Amino acid sequence: MKILSKLPEMPYYAVIFSSIKTEKLDGYNDTAEKMWQLAHEQEGFLGVDSAGGETHGEAGITVSYWRDLDSIKQWKMQSDHAIARKLGKEKWYQGYTLRVAKVEKQYDFSAD
Amino acid sequence: MKILSKLPEMPYYAVIFSSIKTEKLDGYNDTAEKMWQLAHEQEGFLGVDSAGGETHGEAGITVSYWRDLDSIKQWKMQSDHAIARKLGKEKWYQGYTLRVAKVEKQYDFSAD
Repeated sequence: MKILSKLPEMPYYAVIFSSIKTEKLDGYNDTAEKMWQLAHEQEGFLGVDSAGGETHGEAGITVSYWRDLDSIKQWKMQSDHAIARKLGKEKWYQGYTLRVAKVEKQYDFSAD
Repeated sequence: MKILSKLPEMPYYAVIFSSIKTEKLDGYNDTAEKMWQLAHEQEGFLGVDSAGGETHGEAGITVSYWRDLDSIKQWKMQSDHAIARKLGKEKWYQGYTLRVAKVEKQYDFSAD
C-alpha cells in the first residue's frame, strides 16, 4: 500500500503541481524517477505525495513539501530539473498548473 | 479529457487532502459526488482538482481552492459535510493528511 508523507513541522511550503499528460510519454517514466531521486537529495526537501496521472488525459497531482521559498528556488534552478521541465512542456504535458503555498494548518488521520 | 481548475486571483487558500482508501467503499461514490456539488455551492469556493484514489490502497489527492480561511471554516461546519467526514474516518479512509495553505505564487502552462 502507498504511504503518505508525514506532516513536517510548520511552517513550510507545499508546491502543488497538477497536470494532464499528452500521448507522447516516451522517456517520461525514467525522467520522473530521476527527478524523484534528485528532489530527495535537495536541501530543504521534506517529502512528496503523488496521485493519478498514469495515462493520457487523466489528471495527476504531485505535492512536494519544502522548508522555505529558497529551497524551492534552488530546486527550480537545479540543472537536470530545468531540462526535465523543458521536455515536459515540449512533449509530456497537455497542460499544468503549479502553485506555491505556505502551509498554515494541518491534520492527519490513521485508522491503525 | 479532464480539465484542470483555472488559477484564481491571489491571494486565496488551497486545502490539500491526500488519502489512502480502505476496501470498504460502499456508499463512497454517492457521497463524494454529493460533497462535490455541495462544495460548489459554498460561499468562497473557487475550484477543485482531484487525481487518483479510485481503488483500495492507491493514493488520492484532492485540492480545493477557497477565497479565505473563513470560507474553509464554513465548509468544515457544513452539516452534510461533517457527516461525510465522520463516515470517511469510520469506513473509507485507511489514512489521510489535510493541509490548509495560502497560495503565494502560481503559474500555468497549456500546449494548445
